[in-house]
Amino acid sequence: MPVNLVSPVAGQLHPIAGLKLGIASAGIKQPGRKDVTVLLPAPGSVVAGVFTENRFCAAPVTLCRQHLTQSASPVALVINTGNANAGTGEDGMARAMQVCAALAQQLGCAAAQILPFSTGVIMEPLPADKIVAALPAALADASEDNWLAAAEAIMTTDIVAKGASHSIDIEGVAVHVTGIAKGSGMIHPNMATMLGYVATDAHVSPDILQRMVREAADVSFNCITVDGDTSTNDSFMLIATGQSGALPVDHWDHPARPVLQEAINQVSRELAQAIVRDGEGATKFIQIAVEQGQTREECRQVAYAIARSPLVKTAFFASDPNLGRILAAIGYAGINDLDVSNIQVWLGDVLVAEHGGRAASYQEADGQRVMRESDITIRVALNRGLAQATVWTCDFSYDYVKINAEYRS
Amino acid sequence: MPVNLVSPVAGQLHPIAGLKLGIASAGIKQPGRKDVTVLLPAPGSVVAGVFTENRFCAAPVTLCRQHLTQSASPVALVINTGNANAGTGEDGMARAMQVCAALAQQLGCAAAQILPFSTGVIMEPLPADKIVAALPAALADASEDNWLAAAEAIMTTDIVAKGASHSIDIEGVAVHVTGIAKGSGMIHPNMATMLGYVATDAHVSPDILQRMVREAADVSFNCITVDGDTSTNDSFMLIATGQSGALPVDHWDHPARPVLQEAINQVSRELAQAIVRDGEGATKFIQIAVEQGQTREECRQVAYAIARSPLVKTAFFASDPNLGRILAAIGYAGINDLDVSNIQVWLGDVLVAEHGGRAASYQEADGQRVMRESDITIRVALNRGLAQATVWTCDFSYDYVKINAEYRS
Repeated sequence: MPVNLVSPVAGQLHPIAGLKLGIASAGIKQPGRKDVTVLLPAPGSVVAGVFTENRFCAAPVTLCRQHLTQSASPVALVINTGNANAGTGEDGMARAMQVCAALAQQLGCAAAQILPFSTGVIMEPLPADKIVAALPAALADASEDNWLAAAEAIMTTDIVAKGASHSIDIEGVAVHVTGIAKGSGMIHPNMATMLGYVATDAHVSPDILQRMVREAADVSFNCITVDGDTSTNDSFMLIATGQSGALPVDHWDHPARPVLQEAINQVSRELAQAIVRDGEGATKFIQIAVEQGQTREECRQVAYAIARSPLVKTAFFASDPNLGRILAAIGYAGINDLDVSNIQVWLGDVLVAEHGGRAASYQEADGQRVMRESDITIRVALNRGLAQATVWTCDFSYDYVKINAEYRS
Repeated sequence: MPVNLVSPVAGQLHPIAGLKLGIASAGIKQPGRKDVTVLLPAPGSVVAGVFTENRFCAAPVTLCRQHLTQSASPVALVINTGNANAGTGEDGMARAMQVCAALAQQLGCAAAQILPFSTGVIMEPLPADKIVAALPAALADASEDNWLAAAEAIMTTDIVAKGASHSIDIEGVAVHVTGIAKGSGMIHPNMATMLGYVATDAHVSPDILQRMVREAADVSFNCITVDGDTSTNDSFMLIATGQSGALPVDHWDHPARPVLQEAINQVSRELAQAIVRDGEGATKFIQIAVEQGQTREECRQVAYAIARSPLVKTAFFASDPNLGRILAAIGYAGINDLDVSNIQVWLGDVLVAEHGGRAASYQEADGQRVMRESDITIRVALNRGLAQATVWTCDFSYDYVKINAEYRS
């Protein structure tokens, strides 16, 4: 069951003026299941995105990257669940293009102005005809109030729909940021993918929006891991419609940029953490904060070594304050000149290790108390600099093996 | 249960002239359990070793490295199970030194001529007094015929004792190579460690032996993974007694060196594979061969990405030919200019993927047939060079989680 996570309720996700969402059922995997979503940014909107670095990336990812290069103002985004169109070679490209072309024809634009996204089973041919047949219904359904329905329509094996909303004030004008995401792992077995869509009614120029989406990804979706596997389809898109009436954010040092960035980061972080809380088989949500490093990168390296260790993750599942596994992971993180005698480690508020071994003040009962919580923070001080990084992960349970061993059967 | 692995039987491990092994019981974890082993190379023997790169390495590893720097001809090696003396700071160093000093006194040598090894629980004080008390019995027990007993005495949670033996002919003289190892993971939860000891009666000079042990490690213990975690205590030692009567191997291009190297590699590989076959919760033994890469390193990167993926490992546990997970792992292995349309993948003898997707000839039933075996080979051709690398791993089962979640309770 998801760890301290509930679905957003109607009204909680603030509409974004200038972005309509439409949902329909193409019957890709199950008849009647809402599985096709279109996002329709009004003319003048700007879109930016970051994508998986997996070399076996899916056809829609390749096409989406190409189309975004041609225009930062696409006419529509189209998302299907039930089939990832990944590991499908040339035929997969043709099918993704078929969907783009059909939607372009209905909207009176070029196919290159459509951005396609797919999530679901890998290595099966995309049922493009079914998706094309559902497009008119999706377009007819389009409204600015459809965020929650869209959050539900992009789910695959997610247990809980994921959405977040945040409002800020830019020079007296209310500006809104709303986002949805899906995924219950960096890769979702066969059901590949993390997908995230965040929109704002702020006015942002294309080059600034591209930098903003990268920064938001770096502090959110790039800080999570469920199983260390990087999906073939991961995509995170940021849409700015410019309809709030606030002045345009057209350069990086614009005074409103940090405020808007933080609102976007906040929504992105909530979505990213929701993915971890809904991680496959998760029973604990674990925040790993590494501080006092020489660089942010080395802090991330240590945090990810801990977050990815199956031994650490199974110990969390067992609520076992197994300090040796955490220290061992820090030790093999790949920082060659790390002096372990300077490191301090806390479980929650309990100092558990220093001087290369167990802290003198540490009592097993205190560690046990922290480990019984469902939200746990590990803090590591490297004591060699001022940089810091935080990563979020979940534990490794019987259900993780069960879900992933039985998925296709 | 171990995958196609049985314990060696008496007589199968050939004695090495010039190396005695003695076993005793110190009662470290259980009364009566044989848990202390001494290895006594005759004068003139040479010893070389490679050790874990974990920065949180155990006190005996630090001490062993120091002592080996001072002399390549130690008088004794002393190994205890039941306590790893890792994560124990300064006090751990003092206790490891106490054991060395006591054994040195009994053997009439300097403490720096003793090499200490420990395996067992992490972050608990080493019961050095108990070990010291058991040393006279271990010395009294010393004989060249004790290999099998030593293989059993160094076990921790290993289910099966691990030993291998190989004989070769060097210019008409019979030369023997025998080894033992323990470990059922790169790190063994709390019960830290892979330990390996290989001895030969060949005559090898110290600098050549050091290069030979590194080469042997590179093609054996450095090619395995159970859970991706690198232990605090991993040590692999190579001992050459020189008592076979064969001519000394005193330079790298010596004609006998490759023959001897291959015998040592062979014994090391058998031991390394035995560790994987006895991996925690293992039900399958998986060989991952990556070929036609530009460098051996990139082949290893791809092989390890597959071998470490929890999604691949759970699919093997389920006997599920889940090609998407294998392709995704290849894709995120970190080779930025990899052209996935050139890659071919085989499961056993079945071509399963090419041209960026499923092979046209592939039938699910053929993949299923291969996956039902207990020994499985994945072969990946990158089609961009001549290098190759092979890695061995096991699957990820319910029992892996059970063993690691319940270990300390």
